[in-house]
Amino acid sequence: VTGWFARPTTVNHRHASKSFLHDFLDEMQAENIKHHLRKFTRLPHLAGSQQNLDLAKQIRAEWMEFGLDSVELVPYDVLLSYPNKTNPNYISIVDHLGNEIFNTSLAEPVPEGYEDVTDIVPPYSAFSAKGQPEDELVYVNYGRTEDFFKLERELGINCSGKIVIARYGKIFRGNKVKNAMLAGAKGIVLFSDPADYCADGVEPYPDGWNLPGGGAQRGNVLNLNGAGDPLTPGYPAKEYTYRSSLEDAVGLPKIPVHPIGYHDAVHLLQHMGGPLPPDNWKGALNISYRIGPGFMDGLNQNKVRMNIHTNNQVTRIYNVIGWIRGAVEPDRYVILGGHRDAWVFGGIDPVSGAAVVHESVRAAGKLMKKGWRPRRTLIFASWDAEEFGLLGSTEWAEDHARVLQERAVAYINADSAIEGMYTLRVDCTPSLHTLVYDITKKVSSPEEGEEGMTLYQSWHKRDNSTERDAPWISKLGSGSDFEAYFIRLGIASGRARYTKNRKTERYSSYPVYHSVYETYEIVERFYDPSFRRLEAVARVRGGLIFSLADSPVLPLDCVEYAMSLTKYANSIYQLALKHPAAMEQYSVSFDSLFSAVENFTVAAQDFHQRLDQLDTSNALAVRMVNDQLMYLERAFTDPLGLPGRPFYRHIIFAPSSHNKYAGESFPGIYDALFDIENAVDPQEAWDEVKRQISIAAFTVNTAAETLKPVVS
Amino acid sequence: VTGWFARPTTVNHRHASKSFLHDFLDEMQAENIKHHLRKFTRLPHLAGSQQNLDLAKQIRAEWMEFGLDSVELVPYDVLLSYPNKTNPNYISIVDHLGNEIFNTSLAEPVPEGYEDVTDIVPPYSAFSAKGQPEDELVYVNYGRTEDFFKLERELGINCSGKIVIARYGKIFRGNKVKNAMLAGAKGIVLFSDPADYCADGVEPYPDGWNLPGGGAQRGNVLNLNGAGDPLTPGYPAKEYTYRSSLEDAVGLPKIPVHPIGYHDAVHLLQHMGGPLPPDNWKGALNISYRIGPGFMDGLNQNKVRMNIHTNNQVTRIYNVIGWIRGAVEPDRYVILGGHRDAWVFGGIDPVSGAAVVHESVRAAGKLMKKGWRPRRTLIFASWDAEEFGLLGSTEWAEDHARVLQERAVAYINADSAIEGMYTLRVDCTPSLHTLVYDITKKVSSPEEGEEGMTLYQSWHKRDNSTERDAPWISKLGSGSDFEAYFIRLGIASGRARYTKNRKTERYSSYPVYHSVYETYEIVERFYDPSFRRLEAVARVRGGLIFSLADSPVLPLDCVEYAMSLTKYANSIYQLALKHPAAMEQYSVSFDSLFSAVENFTVAAQDFHQRLDQLDTSNALAVRMVNDQLMYLERAFTDPLGLPGRPFYRHIIFAPSSHNKYAGESFPGIYDALFDIENAVDPQEAWDEVKRQISIAAFTVNTAAETLKPVVS
Repeated sequence: VTGWFARPTTVNHRHASKSFLHDFLDEMQAENIKHHLRKFTRLPHLAGSQQNLDLAKQIRAEWMEFGLDSVELVPYDVLLSYPNKTNPNYISIVDHLGNEIFNTSLAEPVPEGYEDVTDIVPPYSAFSAKGQPEDELVYVNYGRTEDFFKLERELGINCSGKIVIARYGKIFRGNKVKNAMLAGAKGIVLFSDPADYCADGVEPYPDGWNLPGGGAQRGNVLNLNGAGDPLTPGYPAKEYTYRSSLEDAVGLPKIPVHPIGYHDAVHLLQHMGGPLPPDNWKGALNISYRIGPGFMDGLNQNKVRMNIHTNNQVTRIYNVIGWIRGAVEPDRYVILGGHRDAWVFGGIDPVSGAAVVHESVRAAGKLMKKGWRPRRTLIFASWDAEEFGLLGSTEWAEDHARVLQERAVAYINADSAIEGMYTLRVDCTPSLHTLVYDITKKVSSPEEGEEGMTLYQSWHKRDNSTERDAPWISKLGSGSDFEAYFIRLGIASGRARYTKNRKTERYSSYPVYHSVYETYEIVERFYDPSFRRLEAVARVRGGLIFSLADSPVLPLDCVEYAMSLTKYANSIYQLALKHPAAMEQYSVSFDSLFSAVENFTVAAQDFHQRLDQLDTSNALAVRMVNDQLMYLERAFTDPLGLPGRPFYRHIIFAPSSHNKYAGESFPGIYDALFDIENAVDPQEAWDEVKRQISIAAFTVNTAAETLKPVVS
Repeated sequence: VTGWFARPTTVNHRHASKSFLHDFLDEMQAENIKHHLRKFTRLPHLAGSQQNLDLAKQIRAEWMEFGLDSVELVPYDVLLSYPNKTNPNYISIVDHLGNEIFNTSLAEPVPEGYEDVTDIVPPYSAFSAKGQPEDELVYVNYGRTEDFFKLERELGINCSGKIVIARYGKIFRGNKVKNAMLAGAKGIVLFSDPADYCADGVEPYPDGWNLPGGGAQRGNVLNLNGAGDPLTPGYPAKEYTYRSSLEDAVGLPKIPVHPIGYHDAVHLLQHMGGPLPPDNWKGALNISYRIGPGFMDGLNQNKVRMNIHTNNQVTRIYNVIGWIRGAVEPDRYVILGGHRDAWVFGGIDPVSGAAVVHESVRAAGKLMKKGWRPRRTLIFASWDAEEFGLLGSTEWAEDHARVLQERAVAYINADSAIEGMYTLRVDCTPSLHTLVYDITKKVSSPEEGEEGMTLYQSWHKRDNSTERDAPWISKLGSGSDFEAYFIRLGIASGRARYTKNRKTERYSSYPVYHSVYETYEIVERFYDPSFRRLEAVARVRGGLIFSLADSPVLPLDCVEYAMSLTKYANSIYQLALKHPAAMEQYSVSFDSLFSAVENFTVAAQDFHQRLDQLDTSNALAVRMVNDQLMYLERAFTDPLGLPGRPFYRHIIFAPSSHNKYAGESFPGIYDALFDIENAVDPQEAWDEVKRQISIAAFTVNTAAETLKPVVS
């Protein structure tokens, strides 16, 4: 499995590369990242704003100065969504006379030092429908599929025609909105419960890094399923591109949606009627709020009114794309991309990541001045409008789908570089596992008291995998810009960031996520005072793209893919085995899938064995095996896509249908099995399971074929 | 445009190739093709039959003997359709008492010398629904879209609930059946009219090559739109593959269909009621048959009854796949494929083509024994079940889609090599135009009295293009095995055969098409007594695959593609201009498309200019430009496919929605414009036109991008 990694390549080149890799990693420094972060977080940079265009131009100028071969601004005209400046969004409690007896706040209290900043967009749910629905409120916990099942099936509570209120956390907010719509709700309020947005023993910002009671989480509430711009699904949103009408747009919610903080949420929740919620629904508001409908146990006629005036509008956005031409194989692309647009200052999301990209570009430029040029082409991307549905990155992927499919070796994502203070977190395609481990062994631990320890050792110590003695690496889900590259185009992808302790810290994301409190200071004071954690992340991300761009033989490991497939096949089989009678009755077998995984495993092992014998002085022979390595990820994609999700084409990985943030393996089979015990037509439902097993088996077999000798 | 063709490559290799090309063309000889044709036409070779499996094994053995590196039988289990052996299909005239007063014949009179042959399948429409519908008959001319429009809109004749009768010709029979279903017919009879199946001054077989009155045309009546096996659309029909139910199968007609000859047709037609047909509907039966409904002008109560008992059944088929490993780039594939299965003896369709493939394999093996090995890998395919919907070739394309997309340089089709006695006919992708002209200049004219003339000269003399001074080359349509390779996968494809004079010979295809009279003797006596026409076709097909497999730089011409795109853009624009008021009202512009075509033209010219400067001693540099050339055709495909036709993914070319045999350029725009003056919702209809223009413009732009320098 690991032997090939030590495989000799042309000695000189390898030595040169090794030394340059070392130089490159060393060149990226905490102080510089700190400087970039400070510089890029002074003003809000909302997608579509003048400030974000100004920032794009600044980045272009600096990347050129750093020494990239070329840097361009690439515009698209996509559907964005902004609050109406003269008619603010809020939620009211309305009495029986129609008086608004309580209104939620129109903005978050601005943190110290930012009082004079204009253009801070208030908390809102981007792409919310307009409207002023008024009705009783039903509490739906996190608004997950299982929460609505519990309400409807166990508690007998019908959300149809009501306004629902869900707490943030656990799943992507767009899935909550979709579930509310499916349940027939006519509006949905989202709030941050301290149970999910405050860590124990931590003060609210600015005294600590918890979410203040007046803070609220912005965010889009789309269900795009990878479509990109809602008006131009499948095609880049250029000037000449045909745009569908808003009625035909992809993924827009049909109901009003609005986010509030916990200070406001208390008011809406304290008077709720209905039975008490299950214990594990109660959150931390210290109020026995009920699951509705009805206020004050039906003793008064107060209702909730949503006042939502948010506008959708086609707006120009700008990606910044920088190039370093490859010296040997300019037609092979390695991409480092992350977004630039922020809800407000973006201290963490995305600038902790953008600062890291900036430092990588600077370091690459420095090396070029020393005479280095990568074997393959490097592309650096500063995406726009990620916060509005991954729009900048998806439009560019759509625009260049053909050349990317032909030429892209890997995509490394660079969103927020830090979301906690504990250790490294990596999500990536299985073929990158080995390289991730390799690179982290070349980076020092950023933690105090771990001088002389590698990042690998520090990470391993803190987060060992349950499956083997190595640090934990997870599947890719979605919610960031790698989506189109990985799930739609089948380009090997990965992401790395510093994170919390996932076993002990139970809050969702980081508390101030998407609030005005994501400032430079929260990083500088709490998350990474020495900036050595960001430096470590920079070196991981940078080391990945460096190795992918410069190694004569691509550092991708097919045997790791085989091991992951084995694990996923076992896991989905176990899920099906929960229905032994139906499996028997409908003759459902996973044999074809297991057989395919076995074929793949043998093909991968044989491939790496042949690789050991490769004559690396034969340029065409090297190119041929590299093509096999590069196209392996592509082989897992199917142009027909997943059922109902045509832009999710990867058969092994997709964002969960119930939570965009989470990755699901064998998603076609998983979705076919989901809630199958309640299927209206069990025969049809199990037929779909069988069809999905067949597609998965075929896809794994066909991926195996790409690794076999190229002539039968 | 043509300069690059003379571009020097490494001198030694070029000389070697040139000499081997000459040897290869010379090696293919008329006498051998005659011998192969004789050998392969003694028995029927219906798909799914033991005889066709035996023939597959024989071909495998001979290809191995000829010297291929490997040859394999590749099975699939696909849906085929056969008449019920104990319950024959026929059509009756039924009187008012229910007596069958006339029945059509159950079989064709067997030609002399074949009386003892068993297993001749009688004429039938494969995949017909079963049933015994009985009703009045309506004559619908060729059953084309425009014929049904005329019936419904001008003549006021409603086919709903009737049995319709259509003459063969002009369009693919499956489209006739689809149109009949759309018109509400409950059955359709297909007949061969002498106007369409007899040439003037020619005797019926065996005294000439016209269709005898007792002959009838077999053929499938599917509307697969490229799906392959109806039960496994998108995936290869392997043992483990999930199969849909017959109700959910793709493309099966829902009504009974049956073909008859003109002797039988006379009986059904002579008593028809209703108004007289338009003059150009009358055909040659010398009977003033009417367009119905009603028999004998309604004076009696005779009806027509169809008795159809044809069965669909999943059946094993076998492709034969032979390989010659490429010496330099084994991971680049050039494919020569044609089908082996025949309705009966297949004297023309397909064995005139299969004999040519056989001779190419023999010639390639001969060269290998002299020390030659092609630069790229050559794949030879003998497809099964082409007659049942291009099943063998499509299943193999589905099975190997990933590696074909990564590695296939070109696909050359080898169906019937002769359908007339006049000159060459070539349909191919525009990038092959130049190579086709080049190869035909290296082949001698097969015509008597043209000694010393090249095939190019002979062809040019007989069929000059209307657009320039060069022989006419047409677009690819469908109806043969290149479909999945070209239209679905985007692999540069072409076909060549000997044909009739398209300007003077008005009959459809060749008269005995798909009848029992397609024997060895019809070729030997009438079509090609010297076998020099088949030899010429063998040299064209063989020369194409040789050059594609062996030239260091791929002999594909992007500027020819640009010229064709310009022509197609003008042509579709002219079509739209028939609606000037609507174009104005709905702001329909073709500017984006013309601009894209201009971009493509510039990119293609620049590409070929850079190619002139290419350092051909740089193996990686050559590989990079070859990748650009290879992937150009791929760039025209869109994974989203055409509206309602997910497996037709080529945006520039698709089979016409109204006639599978014909190729349509910019098919998305064409279909959106079709009959738009009668659109129920003109706004929606013109929006779709605009959307399709946008998709076409984007696709052409993105194809242009693939030809630009690989780094921005």
